[in-house]
Amino acid sequence: MKKINIASDLLLAYQELIKDDFFEISILANTTAFLNEILENINWVGFYLLKDNCLYLGPFQGKVACTRIEVGKGVCGSSVARKETIIVFDVSKFPGHIACDENSQSEIVVPLFVNNKIYGVLDIDSPILNRFNSYDQNFLEEITKILSKHLEAILK
Amino acid sequence: MKKINIASDLLLAYQELIKDDFFEISILANTTAFLNEILENINWVGFYLLKDNCLYLGPFQGKVACTRIEVGKGVCGSSVARKETIIVFDVSKFPGHIACDENSQSEIVVPLFVNNKIYGVLDIDSPILNRFNSYDQNFLEEITKILSKHLEAILK
Repeated sequence: MKKINIASDLLLAYQELIKDDFFEISILANTTAFLNEILENINWVGFYLLKDNCLYLGPFQGKVACTRIEVGKGVCGSSVARKETIIVFDVSKFPGHIACDENSQSEIVVPLFVNNKIYGVLDIDSPILNRFNSYDQNFLEEITKILSKHLEAILK
Repeated sequence: MKKINIASDLLLAYQELIKDDFFEISILANTTAFLNEILENINWVGFYLLKDNCLYLGPFQGKVACTRIEVGKGVCGSSVARKETIIVFDVSKFPGHIACDENSQSEIVVPLFVNNKIYGVLDIDSPILNRFNSYDQNFLEEITKILSKHLEAILK
């Protein structure tokens, strides 16, 4: 029943956007711009990429951000450690939250898998409390599935 | 005399921002966010990176953008071919201009050299005509010099 809530036209538009690209960074950068254009009430959207067991800032839209996050630390690092999406209704209440933009009040982090290994995370911040719900989670997990599949094809 | 016009505090702030980072993509991504925060009247700022004689979209701030530009084509490709900064007062009058965001009216493209070879370009669009002047050119060329030096150090 979950599928009914997913904006399938946006998923098709996203698939269309990236389908001919094979340069990893271009795809990640345009993904952040695409999400920034369609999602309301967000102030930061971007990727952190896993290299040598540490997350490094990737392409994003928003204010200058912290460049390194250890696995297990903050919301991004916790998502990698748990290998699951984390929704934070109020970032001030998340133990060890790493504040990049002081306007951020709620957050969602979705892990991105490539060939069954964590490749990085998609991180989105909102300037309002309680911005993200299960609808967003489903939609963003579908986005990351499309992205994963495409990255798996080009990184072969 | 040109140097008097250069905002040296901003250049120092930029140097400070990137000095501890060694992951190429993080540095490029934060550079676009930094420039987006300090430059007025711009609607797109980002990098195109040169690979196999073609420019590919890198980290940026702004709307979804075209992902591949041939050397010699558009303002970015022309900047690479000429190995110099190009200021376009009115993009509609630039032969072969590649329109990504229809709001863009003027543009500046600064080539980025790493070890004396073109690594890519810094591309900035404005929604107003005639936005960029020699002051911007000097400032942005100083920014790319700091960036080049840092990339040369980490890409050794």
